[in-house]
Amino acid sequence: MKVAVLGFGTVGQGVYEMLHHAKGLEAGPVLVRPGKKDADFKVTTIEAITGDPSVDAVVEVLGGIEPACSWVSAALKAKKHVVTANKALVAAHGPELAALARENGVALLFSAACGGGVPFLHNLALACQSDEVLSVGGILNGTTNYMLDAMQSRGADYADVLKDAQALGYAEADPTADVSGLDALRKIMLACAVAFEKLPCEGLYHEGIVDLAAEDVRDFQSMGYTCRLVAKGGPVDDTVFAFVEPTLVPASAAECAVKDNYNLARYEAKCAGDIVLIGQGAGRFPTASAVLRDLSDVLSGQRMMMPQGCVRVTADCTGCGHPYYVRLPKAFAAQLPCDEVKEDGDIARVITKSITVKEMHDLAAQLRQQGAQVFFAGIEE
Amino acid sequence: MKVAVLGFGTVGQGVYEMLHHAKGLEAGPVLVRPGKKDADFKVTTIEAITGDPSVDAVVEVLGGIEPACSWVSAALKAKKHVVTANKALVAAHGPELAALARENGVALLFSAACGGGVPFLHNLALACQSDEVLSVGGILNGTTNYMLDAMQSRGADYADVLKDAQALGYAEADPTADVSGLDALRKIMLACAVAFEKLPCEGLYHEGIVDLAAEDVRDFQSMGYTCRLVAKGGPVDDTVFAFVEPTLVPASAAECAVKDNYNLARYEAKCAGDIVLIGQGAGRFPTASAVLRDLSDVLSGQRMMMPQGCVRVTADCTGCGHPYYVRLPKAFAAQLPCDEVKEDGDIARVITKSITVKEMHDLAAQLRQQGAQVFFAGIEE
Repeated sequence: MKVAVLGFGTVGQGVYEMLHHAKGLEAGPVLVRPGKKDADFKVTTIEAITGDPSVDAVVEVLGGIEPACSWVSAALKAKKHVVTANKALVAAHGPELAALARENGVALLFSAACGGGVPFLHNLALACQSDEVLSVGGILNGTTNYMLDAMQSRGADYADVLKDAQALGYAEADPTADVSGLDALRKIMLACAVAFEKLPCEGLYHEGIVDLAAEDVRDFQSMGYTCRLVAKGGPVDDTVFAFVEPTLVPASAAECAVKDNYNLARYEAKCAGDIVLIGQGAGRFPTASAVLRDLSDVLSGQRMMMPQGCVRVTADCTGCGHPYYVRLPKAFAAQLPCDEVKEDGDIARVITKSITVKEMHDLAAQLRQQGAQVFFAGIEE
Repeated sequence: MKVAVLGFGTVGQGVYEMLHHAKGLEAGPVLVRPGKKDADFKVTTIEAITGDPSVDAVVEVLGGIEPACSWVSAALKAKKHVVTANKALVAAHGPELAALARENGVALLFSAACGGGVPFLHNLALACQSDEVLSVGGILNGTTNYMLDAMQSRGADYADVLKDAQALGYAEADPTADVSGLDALRKIMLACAVAFEKLPCEGLYHEGIVDLAAEDVRDFQSMGYTCRLVAKGGPVDDTVFAFVEPTLVPASAAECAVKDNYNLARYEAKCAGDIVLIGQGAGRFPTASAVLRDLSDVLSGQRMMMPQGCVRVTADCTGCGHPYYVRLPKAFAAQLPCDEVKEDGDIARVITKSITVKEMHDLAAQLRQQGAQVFFAGIEE
């Protein structure tokens, strides 16, 4: 199977290299911007790929919505299988692209869009054929996990570990999508689509780690907790819940063993029980390896990851809840449903009663509107 | 795809039930012993299945070598796909059965034979298509993990936790294969066959947990270690190494988060890096779910898990090594290459210098021939 690659950045180069060693696969042309054509295998127009009858499959690793969406559509219409690592694209247009793939009798797989090298969506899609998936979740952003692990193990400050993450190439120059939790949110949206046939587009909550301070981490450690940025999703009536938030996990949890920029993805299924998958969440070869596994899967006959009946829904986060750890100025603590309060100068550290995800995220937004600096984290029960 | 089931024990019943809810699959006849036919869907001869043109695939969950081997061969010759959970069968006759499946153009998959509900062999086989697997391993026996976890968390004795494991149905009346490490050894043999195209049949080492005492566990805990029964395998020149032994892992290892009767399987690949999979290692529905995932995989076109070039080899455990923890009568300690010795009455607790797996297992055999009671565990570096 001859495979063309759209994009020749970090992951694209990894995919191109791996194609030379993979069983049953062959490297085809690589699409680059006009100024970047410096080798015979590079082409500069999508038509050079869609019009090439020797190309059987197309890997899209451009990122972003356009031109990725138009080019993937063109490839599917030209009856090329598509494997993409682009979570923004699948979160925005997954159901339509999957329908287009079905119409044209070709594959659309996107394992690399969620969990990097962790074989999450592949296994989730397979499990859904014979088992009932009850929940999905995990640590789906490697940049923030590196930062949280460094803050915990070295006692370092947020600003310092962010600089380190940037120096190591884990964080972008603009790290907003990572540290705000938005990147992890897009990934859990995809997992919900695969597992529950529902792509949640509104009613979602995400809280990142930008307000985390070294003193907070010390306090978690004194209580025996480790902080991880955790995404969760599950079915609720005819929709799903899905959210991302810092989460305090006990020392016995597998999440504590997730170091550096690793990811952990988990699902619970009615028959299989809890399944946990750990691996590198990003990077050239880990992400390329997920793309290549999808290509091998296409080769053996696999076609679809997005379920045929998948519909867009508004998420409902009013039914799931737990206690929260909240650090905020003492003067604002009375607005929280406190269970325990520790005062520390002008600061209060609160353990709340069990409240819903919607309540806590809405409360934090209100407190911030009033000028309060707030950090909060769910507590794993 | 209509699926017949050979055997109607714990796993067979789970498979039969799951077949009623799986996409694209349909429950066919179930083969039982003549006296056990108490329902229309049950048949008592293999010919009733191999001769039934409506049956597309056969699940074998009988266990043991015969009649499983003859019946699986008959099913393959009748051009039925086969999915088996039988590690003894695949360890003994896997290459021949795979060749028979290839000749007849049908599938032979056996994910459930290693790791129970953990999707290990499936992912390993997929990874091998495009990546180079460098090592395989993990906690592959749930019974002993339950026992080790209970000894560590409750400070209980070996005899007590074995009784508990039997009462819970985790351990057989004769638990020898589990507690000796033989069950885990058979599983790592299969992982080596899938990952390295080499099925090791001789030169293998396995040490179980029968000599473990509550005081040993307390000593590990005082050093910050957790004891797990770990299997490891990897390529060496034109063969592989493969062994099972109790292993002391540091608190930061994912192995420590593996509780109760769970399994952890891991592989390291050149591009993907370290991949860790955790789930239930046994039980009706976890094991049945692995069988069903293989059936869905057959449905989507997957055929082979055992590589075509797989050959039997004699393992070589002379190149891999590490320090060991050894507890033995003081009088025998001088026979070990000691790095540290703690004396405790008549008992010595030794940390050895780094020695090879072959050296340590051979030394323990010699000491036992001299009448010494010995427990040993590898120390994870």
